[in-house]
Amino acid sequence: MPNPGAIRPARILVINPNSSRTVTAAIDAAVAPLRLPSGPDITVTDLPEGPESISSQQDADCVVMPLARRIAEDSADAFVIACFSDPGLQTAREVAAGRPVMGIAEWGILRSLTLGERFGIVALSEGSVRRQRRMVRQMGLGERYAGSRPIEALAAETADEAIRIRLIAAARILIEHDGADAIVFGCAGMAPHRIAVERAIGRPVVEPCQQAVAAALGAVLLRAAP
Amino acid sequence: MPNPGAIRPARILVINPNSSRTVTAAIDAAVAPLRLPSGPDITVTDLPEGPESISSQQDADCVVMPLARRIAEDSADAFVIACFSDPGLQTAREVAAGRPVMGIAEWGILRSLTLGERFGIVALSEGSVRRQRRMVRQMGLGERYAGSRPIEALAAETADEAIRIRLIAAARILIEHDGADAIVFGCAGMAPHRIAVERAIGRPVVEPCQQAVAAALGAVLLRAAP
Amino acid sequence: MPNPGAIRPARILVINPNSSRTVTAAIDAAVAPLRLPSGPDITVTDLPEGPESISSQQDADCVVMPLARRIAEDSADAFVIACFSDPGLQTAREVAAGRPVMGIAEWGILRSLTLGERFGIVALSEGSVRRQRRMVRQMGLGERYAGSRPIEALAAETADEAIRIRLIAAARILIEHDGADAIVFGCAGMAPHRIAVERAIGRPVVEPCQQAVAAALGAVLLRAAP
Amino acid sequence: MPNPGAIRPARILVINPNSSRTVTAAIDAAVAPLRLPSGPDITVTDLPEGPESISSQQDADCVVMPLARRIAEDSADAFVIACFSDPGLQTAREVAAGRPVMGIAEWGILRSLTLGERFGIVALSEGSVRRQRRMVRQMGLGERYAGSRPIEALAAETADEAIRIRLIAAARILIEHDGADAIVFGCAGMAPHRIAVERAIGRPVVEPCQQAVAAALGAVLLRAAP
Amino acid sequence: MPNPGAIRPARILVINPNSSRTVTAAIDAAVAPLRLPSGPDITVTDLPEGPESISSQQDADCVVMPLARRIAEDSADAFVIACFSDPGLQTAREVAAGRPVMGIAEWGILRSLTLGERFGIVALSEGSVRRQRRMVRQMGLGERYAGSRPIEALAAETADEAIRIRLIAAARILIEHDGADAIVFGCAGMAPHRIAVERAIGRPVVEPCQQAVAAALGAVLLRAAP
Amino acid sequence: MPNPGAIRPARILVINPNSSRTVTAAIDAAVAPLRLPSGPDITVTDLPEGPESISSQQDADCVVMPLARRIAEDSADAFVIACFSDPGLQTAREVAAGRPVMGIAEWGILRSLTLGERFGIVALSEGSVRRQRRMVRQMGLGERYAGSRPIEALAAETADEAIRIRLIAAARILIEHDGADAIVFGCAGMAPHRIAVERAIGRPVVEPCQQAVAAALGAVLLRAAP
Repeated sequence: MPNPGAIRPARILVINPNSSRTVTAAIDAAVAPLRLPSGPDITVTDLPEGPESISSQQDADCVVMPLARRIAEDSADAFVIACFSDPGLQTAREVAAGRPVMGIAEWGILRSLTLGERFGIVALSEGSVRRQRRMVRQMGLGERYAGSRPIEALAAETADEAIRIRLIAAARILIEHDGADAIVFGCAGMAPHRIAVERAIGRPVVEPCQQAVAAALGAVLLRAAP
Repeated sequence: MPNPGAIRPARILVINPNSSRTVTAAIDAAVAPLRLPSGPDITVTDLPEGPESISSQQDADCVVMPLARRIAEDSADAFVIACFSDPGLQTAREVAAGRPVMGIAEWGILRSLTLGERFGIVALSEGSVRRQRRMVRQMGLGERYAGSRPIEALAAETADEAIRIRLIAAARILIEHDGADAIVFGCAGMAPHRIAVERAIGRPVVEPCQQAVAAALGAVLLRAAP
Repeated sequence: MPNPGAIRPARILVINPNSSRTVTAAIDAAVAPLRLPSGPDITVTDLPEGPESISSQQDADCVVMPLARRIAEDSADAFVIACFSDPGLQTAREVAAGRPVMGIAEWGILRSLTLGERFGIVALSEGSVRRQRRMVRQMGLGERYAGSRPIEALAAETADEAIRIRLIAAARILIEHDGADAIVFGCAGMAPHRIAVERAIGRPVVEPCQQAVAAALGAVLLRAAP
Repeated sequence: MPNPGAIRPARILVINPNSSRTVTAAIDAAVAPLRLPSGPDITVTDLPEGPESISSQQDADCVVMPLARRIAEDSADAFVIACFSDPGLQTAREVAAGRPVMGIAEWGILRSLTLGERFGIVALSEGSVRRQRRMVRQMGLGERYAGSRPIEALAAETADEAIRIRLIAAARILIEHDGADAIVFGCAGMAPHRIAVERAIGRPVVEPCQQAVAAALGAVLLRAAP
Repeated sequence: MPNPGAIRPARILVINPNSSRTVTAAIDAAVAPLRLPSGPDITVTDLPEGPESISSQQDADCVVMPLARRIAEDSADAFVIACFSDPGLQTAREVAAGRPVMGIAEWGILRSLTLGERFGIVALSEGSVRRQRRMVRQMGLGERYAGSRPIEALAAETADEAIRIRLIAAARILIEHDGADAIVFGCAGMAPHRIAVERAIGRPVVEPCQQAVAAALGAVLLRAAP
Repeated sequence: MPNPGAIRPARILVINPNSSRTVTAAIDAAVAPLRLPSGPDITVTDLPEGPESISSQQDADCVVMPLARRIAEDSADAFVIACFSDPGLQTAREVAAGRPVMGIAEWGILRSLTLGERFGIVALSEGSVRRQRRMVRQMGLGERYAGSRPIEALAAETADEAIRIRLIAAARILIEHDGADAIVFGCAGMAPHRIAVERAIGRPVVEPCQQAVAAALGAVLLRAAP
């Protein structure tokens, strides 16, 4: 009943707004369990116009118009913006003409609200921490926010084995010092470490791309629902 | 009690904590688009020990222990508590031994945060309005809450054609008077009216059972994810 | 079931929702200064159906209906629920038919607002900390809340001499690390240590049963007030 | 200057910071039910240096130092500042040397938190409304505050029979328009109308002097408590 | 690129991010009183790349990178972004290399906090209202925000005489219905009506370009301050 | 164009509410860059009736009426209350008959909101910390407040060279432990250390007298603006 045309299957387009192939591959692997034989197609792509890493507000802002154009021109049934700054989320919704657009920060954080009383975010850098504080305030979720702690790495480095120890250390400070009881990964590239960090810290860890794609999946299936 | 063997397909159990068959049928129809050939089984059931309608805090509290027992004894992979009071949600999570338990108020509200700046809830009664204010504060979402407006009906009546006009009227007051720009239905029984109300008011209307089951679907698919 | 005749003096019933006699005795001693020759009778009782200690949300939820029945059947003029989870407070108010029902967490916290800028709660366990965060949000008092710190003990142990050192340590962390300037005891059983802890830390310490019974006393005296 | 000897009974001094005898008399009558044969003496007095009515911030500020002197010089065991601006409450606590000082706005509002989800205040004037918004923010209770509505009267007029209709009208707007479900009287002079307004509107109405004196009574009885 | 030599006097560059000359002229007139014989030069310019009016989030986002380039390339000592969406404010600060960048929404709102308890914003359209709610949450100022009311006009129309009646009507609703006691103009083009609206409504009206330029003036004068 | 009479130049009166000449001199030097050849005269004075240091709430409250009288009797065009408790700010505005009155805490904090995500205050003493928490709540700015840290000094000592090391230490704790990214000096006497502390900590440091006088300057220039 969802997909009406029957010829074209429904499709979710996941856009990694930076140009790092490593990060795109990490996202692709993370969302694999959401690909169902009968379900919508899930495509992950990068944005050639994007910077290598989104470290500053300028990096986040410079991808907004390219992202909006990409969405306006694509026939996908739903979109996921796969950068934890949720760049251009509101503009993307304007140009998507009613098709769902999900942000990974948005959905990573929303899911964490159902797993604990206070979420903490493992951030890439001190600059990301400041942007996340602004974003959490904008979402109106300050009462549930324990804080963000940086690992001081670039997005493209986050898939490295060596980064895992830093992720665990940051998550532990969020729990023991800041009072978090659920952790959100603050970069799409951290995805390969979810289970390892969860086991190490003994509290839920949310991989945000998985949550945004799961939300897009739900939205696509419910498109034509009564 | 997670998924014990490869033979049994995954299963989501949706429990309507009141004993109204009309409401159970409305939920069952609402979540039908989320049933995929290859996806988890989605079963909707009522709670024989439940009251006919959950109108008071006492009604909500009296189903908590029966609900918890039902969940502890069932081998489902995920659960949805399909009453907008989210009765016993935290206790259910304690007894579910790691299996996801989703509340419909929780997920109806979380989804609405991605559709507008301020959500409004169409409530059954003035008493529900007060409980919803308490619930929204407990969720820490007061900054995004425009308010609740009652239609003064019982849960079992909400599927009636005649109730639609009252739903539309309440939604309009929420938008025009209280500043809502997304509407959440405050009772599982209102499900059949979602599209009609959305068309009438020109703003998104969220049916909460659909959202909680979609969230359970995502959680089940991601169970074993890295 | 209000005060039926002139013969019976007014009566406040304090219910300890767990079945620990040690805790009941501690409460009884704590509220003794509020017993006046001409004032209402103050009776402290336990709840035989209650668990030995209220450590989980399930423990708190399982006493709600027994508590509600006890209140509905008793002719007391006011009630105090003497467990820091304030279990069933709203349902108790519904069944009390207009007679005051006071929660000890509620009144311990409200009193602390008049003694400092930010209150901290000495909690039994890490699990209680999470429930308290939820409760403080539900009360809408997050702006005044410094945090909770656990002593990792059972309710029945709290009256022990040996526990005092842990209470003082937790209170000190709340003050020095979390910025509290008033302390609330997060369990009825901690009552015997109030003065000792207050002297040790040099800031006000609130024993919540005393505050809830004092509030019930005021409410009973003002019952018939113009 | 705490309770010096066994001969003198405990005493609560209630200070009306304006010089209106009508208001002082209204307070005296309101707190009469809290005078117990064996309880502390409760004396109500005005402040000769005070203005006739406290309408502006200047009126409130000009009584602070006289109030502080009165408290420093008096041997009472507890004090109540009986003006809804709670003028000089923090300074009064500094000079009271450990003896409790209660504000009527503070305690009227705290009590209302236990009677409903959102309190509304019947204010004297538009100027009072603004001061009350500031006060509620300072208390950190904005999440529970429905609003204030003015009756445009002077303190000394509030005891008049004719003012009752205005109190009821303002309370009704607070409930029906602003979403209050408990009402607090915003001036000590309104005390004689409490029951009449409560009956007219069908929701709890709090007389703040009664609550502050009840709180002082509890504090005095618990002074020497363990 | 700070002040390179002693010859060039200090300069503040005010950028109207839309391409409407009418709006640029209105801003220029509004900030004239801040031009001092000995003070910094104040230049007002439009952004040729900007849209005619900033009505959608897309309009706001599309000027961010052109604005950032303009700022990076200009040798001014301080910048004002003269659009009430404060587009690109954070990115502008990153590229300004330590030179102050002020947003008009930011400073219009901050000034209003010193003129009343709750500010209301006269908005161009319903879409602006939603963006303003998001912006106020991001600023963390929700407790002081009465709301926004739209006049349904384009930026370029706002200088018209005929628009004044709508500004007054919107301001009155903000005061009488939403509880504002200070008004902020939500578009640079409304500047010519400030005094007329202030007189009509009897409460302070803030013209945001004046406030942002005044703030830039202060920042420039204090640049080299100890 | 501002001052229409041309005979008397516009004048801003900055009142240090304590009687410490050292503090008055520090303020005078701090605001010197805001004195323009063509600008308003800026006079800094102390309050002979004031205490030597404002350490307690009583100290703050005792200067309110003398300050109000000083303002009522002076013909200045704008006033700055140069004590970080902002004593009597609202009363001062009432008596100033429409002339601007600026508080240094108010403007120091507002300016910091444009320099970082969360401000921290270097306070004189633990008692000041508590008053600042109350003040920040009253301003409704809790979401942006990282905290206050005391240096345990008197106002008159703050200009000493030796105090600088304590200011830097407190600022560092605010940044590293409490999550501040902009610092506000919590006493007028700290002014001489602004640049030194800013350099030492690498984040913006706000001297509040400069900000309040800059705001007064803007308000005076815009007095007669359209």
